[in-house]
Amino acid sequence: MFMGASTKQGYDIAIKSREIIRDLIKDDIKDLNPYEKDIVERIVHSTADPEYAKLVKISNNFVTESLKSLKNNETILTDINMVKSGITQYDGEVECFIKNEEVIKIAKENKITRAAASLLYASQENFEGILVVGNAPTALYAAMDLIKGNKINIKSIVGVPVGFVGAADSKESLHETDIPNVITEGPKGGTPIAVACINSLIQSLKEV
Amino acid sequence: MFMGASTKQGYDIAIKSREIIRDLIKDDIKDLNPYEKDIVERIVHSTADPEYAKLVKISNNFVTESLKSLKNNETILTDINMVKSGITQYDGEVECFIKNEEVIKIAKENKITRAAASLLYASQENFEGILVVGNAPTALYAAMDLIKGNKINIKSIVGVPVGFVGAADSKESLHETDIPNVITEGPKGGTPIAVACINSLIQSLKEV
Repeated sequence: MFMGASTKQGYDIAIKSREIIRDLIKDDIKDLNPYEKDIVERIVHSTADPEYAKLVKISNNFVTESLKSLKNNETILTDINMVKSGITQYDGEVECFIKNEEVIKIAKENKITRAAASLLYASQENFEGILVVGNAPTALYAAMDLIKGNKINIKSIVGVPVGFVGAADSKESLHETDIPNVITEGPKGGTPIAVACINSLIQSLKEV
Repeated sequence: MFMGASTKQGYDIAIKSREIIRDLIKDDIKDLNPYEKDIVERIVHSTADPEYAKLVKISNNFVTESLKSLKNNETILTDINMVKSGITQYDGEVECFIKNEEVIKIAKENKITRAAASLLYASQENFEGILVVGNAPTALYAAMDLIKGNKINIKSIVGVPVGFVGAADSKESLHETDIPNVITEGPKGGTPIAVACINSLIQSLKEV
């Protein structure tokens, strides 16, 4: 059902909310395609923060490449479990390796964050699919390095880490690559934004 | 470790982030006690949105009553699994009933949301502890009704649902009761805010 609502009451709230949001942000999103519009609307819905309509930047190839991957039920890898918990309607696997024993070992040995170590581990495990980062800039840098070295098969990245230290730079770096990506400009971002973005695409496929 | 960081790099980022935040919001939080300050700082950390320093409203009895409950390892009940996933350092139980078969049945029979039905179910199960709501205004209303009727033993409520429809009213209603509570004024709120608030208190206990 629309926006993850499972009852009539939830559905009605979601519909009314969308109408309010469309009215608030229509000028900001007028040049986007319908898939991109839905992504931005859903982000604003999940944060009640219309500023995101100005901050979300979607690369030209993001929707097409992501939909291709999702249609094939390729794996979605998330940086933290909170992001994973929000992706409840996908027919493929949703993975988060942050608590994996091997990942914790890689992090300690290399003195890197567990989020970055997750990407090294995913590379070892021949990961193929979409990366969704709601928290850790270090996960984005690790992914960009591995992609550059042809060491991981990431089809697209939802890269929306949050924070005043490092997050904005990591997102800007990602958006400058030719990896299909969506980012939020500046420090703002986080779990609800990451989840809203990927769920929008998953939902789009179910409605076709 | 501080702010859930598990490596030196994560720890350094968290410390620097806190310094930036303190500088941004110091005027807004100058009248709060140290526990309350930490709650607000952590919310701003998790959203990179300094506006929350103006929106967070903490009732006088919230910190004391919540700490008492947490010290006793009473259960934390969350409205959605995303909130549950973010509470990783608690020694007591963290529960979410949204996917419980009985809850789904109660929701259908009474034509209410599953989030509201979760509260009815918790009441049947003699729940005792803290309620953390990051998403569903209906969960707040259900909790307020049950508390009024002495049907549930909720010690405090983190009530920060997000959305343009109903969320603000539900939070205002909660803040007018004498239930120990924290809310965010207006439509903004959500999972990261809920998680930051309860994790701040859990962390405070570990540092004593």
